[in-house]
Amino acid sequence: MPPTAPISFRITAQDGPARTGIVTTPHGEFETPAFMPVGTKASVKALTPRQIGETRSQIILGNTYHLHIRPGEEVVAALGGLHGFMAWPGPILTDSGGYQVFSLSHRRRLTEEGVEFRSHIDGKKVFIGPEESMAIQNALGADIIMAFDECPPTVDVTREMLRDAADRTTRWARRCVDGHRRPEDQGLFGIVQGGTDPELRARSVAEITELDLPGYAIGGLALGEGHDSLVGTVAETAPLLPEDRPRYLMGVGPPKDVLGAIGHGVDMFDCVMPTRNARNYFLFTRVGPVRIRNSCHRQDPAPVDPECRCYTCRTFSRGYLRHLYLLGEPLASTAGTIHNVAFYQDVVIEAREAIKAGRYKDFARNFVERSGEAGFALR
Amino acid sequence: MPPTAPISFRITAQDGPARTGIVTTPHGEFETPAFMPVGTKASVKALTPRQIGETRSQIILGNTYHLHIRPGEEVVAALGGLHGFMAWPGPILTDSGGYQVFSLSHRRRLTEEGVEFRSHIDGKKVFIGPEESMAIQNALGADIIMAFDECPPTVDVTREMLRDAADRTTRWARRCVDGHRRPEDQGLFGIVQGGTDPELRARSVAEITELDLPGYAIGGLALGEGHDSLVGTVAETAPLLPEDRPRYLMGVGPPKDVLGAIGHGVDMFDCVMPTRNARNYFLFTRVGPVRIRNSCHRQDPAPVDPECRCYTCRTFSRGYLRHLYLLGEPLASTAGTIHNVAFYQDVVIEAREAIKAGRYKDFARNFVERSGEAGFALR
Repeated sequence: MPPTAPISFRITAQDGPARTGIVTTPHGEFETPAFMPVGTKASVKALTPRQIGETRSQIILGNTYHLHIRPGEEVVAALGGLHGFMAWPGPILTDSGGYQVFSLSHRRRLTEEGVEFRSHIDGKKVFIGPEESMAIQNALGADIIMAFDECPPTVDVTREMLRDAADRTTRWARRCVDGHRRPEDQGLFGIVQGGTDPELRARSVAEITELDLPGYAIGGLALGEGHDSLVGTVAETAPLLPEDRPRYLMGVGPPKDVLGAIGHGVDMFDCVMPTRNARNYFLFTRVGPVRIRNSCHRQDPAPVDPECRCYTCRTFSRGYLRHLYLLGEPLASTAGTIHNVAFYQDVVIEAREAIKAGRYKDFARNFVERSGEAGFALR
Repeated sequence: MPPTAPISFRITAQDGPARTGIVTTPHGEFETPAFMPVGTKASVKALTPRQIGETRSQIILGNTYHLHIRPGEEVVAALGGLHGFMAWPGPILTDSGGYQVFSLSHRRRLTEEGVEFRSHIDGKKVFIGPEESMAIQNALGADIIMAFDECPPTVDVTREMLRDAADRTTRWARRCVDGHRRPEDQGLFGIVQGGTDPELRARSVAEITELDLPGYAIGGLALGEGHDSLVGTVAETAPLLPEDRPRYLMGVGPPKDVLGAIGHGVDMFDCVMPTRNARNYFLFTRVGPVRIRNSCHRQDPAPVDPECRCYTCRTFSRGYLRHLYLLGEPLASTAGTIHNVAFYQDVVIEAREAIKAGRYKDFARNFVERSGEAGFALR
């Protein structure tokens, strides 16, 4: 079996560094550039699987750390793996838990073996290292699994810390390859670290790509370094990654970051912004954000975004949505999430079309100008 | 125009006092016996209008009191009336606000004119009498609107209090008829009071039916009097109501109360049990209740109710639902509500079929025996 199985990637059009293509997984294909809504605890918050599909999402993400803590991978495995458990028949990617271990856990102790920490739920002692992350992800059964990495902050960090984290990420990646027990039906992606330092990124790319994996992620960004620094790092890093493997920018981000990264050849994204913002009264539109609780929407019969064809925009007025949000009705989160995720899918769908038409740069510039940068600052 | 327009009722089959039929409204028909899920604040909690329809609900209920307080009937009217506002194209019934005025409001002052009270939200002074209730309901625009009644408790109440409330309900009903400004497209139902006192009920029926309205409700029950007392009162009251008008038992109830009342000729029901219980981890099944957070469901691959064909039972395992409920995922409420409302619709659909087949009594007895009385006690 070739080392890239069971994931294959076919580029169908290129426009400068930007490209569009198709990734094939054991649970079907997804088109790139792809946006993955986040289903942290085996549920894309407030949506049924059918509603997820209706947003035109083709692949979703689950969080290894959260699912390990609750309900435990053994429960997920007993109930059909993540696909069966959450009733999502399409492609799924799980992260490695690395990011959450470093951002959420208490009293963390990092050794070469892995990370010992206290659960953010009940304070229980947990240990996750490369082998543990692989075992959990093998039990969860996603189509794409991620190498366990050390994810340092990008600000207030020394070059030495970044270098150590990148080096450890390489050593851990090798152990992940060795520890992966289901290579025939789960593709393992490597993660490149190195912060915003071009030299460290280049070295990390060289070491990780030596493993000849079916896809590579740029990790350790979207942590407060800012748009220009993020896109700059992507512009330097993405071209170093093999052209024939999907490139995944983890945890990104506002539409202008997504569009900027697509322009430098990134193929996959995930971010909680569409789902989390929907629960915080913030709805995306092509002409800027709508803060739906504002009193100007009180009797507004217009949909959130007249250019959107999602169920929410076809069905509900801004006035009704405002009412639901003000009263805390559960339908508010559902309706808002349907719209925001559909908006993100529209962004990548329109990006694919623009790449095919050879007009990506114009499309991305116009989209960002029209929607207004400021509107996308809310995290 | 005949006094019963715009509501018409056609009985299609009878089985003893139990009957099945069709009510026609300006927004389409619904079959009886009918169960109306409660959309208190212009939303059946946690469901989209499409999901409501998929539970096979044909008519839903909105609460005049709540909608008057927030967002105000003028907002609802400006956004297309209740049908347009909440995007429910089918029949809608609004209650009169009477029940909530007596159960929810603070510092209530009852006079012959109406009720002055403090809003349960912000303490603001509000006055609702028969004319105000009609004006609000005319603005909301439901197909069926209810007369403003005085709804006393059924326990710890003197006969004098019950008599006074019934008498005032009659005088107020006459004022509702006079105050109703849209008789051409909204049918006004009268409400019979009198507690569990047969003589008072009979007098109330005689007075209210004199108004020749398109439908009649039995109010003032399901307030703690117990199953036998409730069904006994219905058994005495329903036969006194005109046979050719729909009979609506307000706020009822657990399936055994619904089935008991259908057996005495009641046609319409509403209750928060399926929706509220779904949010409180209590799911209905044909063989008794499922408390879905119990640990016995941890790895249970079975659906909530193997006999149910709702989206939830076709899609999710008990183990997955338990996980969602334990973690407070918003999808828990949605999935649970879809099932519980579909269960209630199955109850009335099966009741209709049994009436048509002339085996209603057997059906109702078997259903209650199989599902277990105790399971339905949670309110």
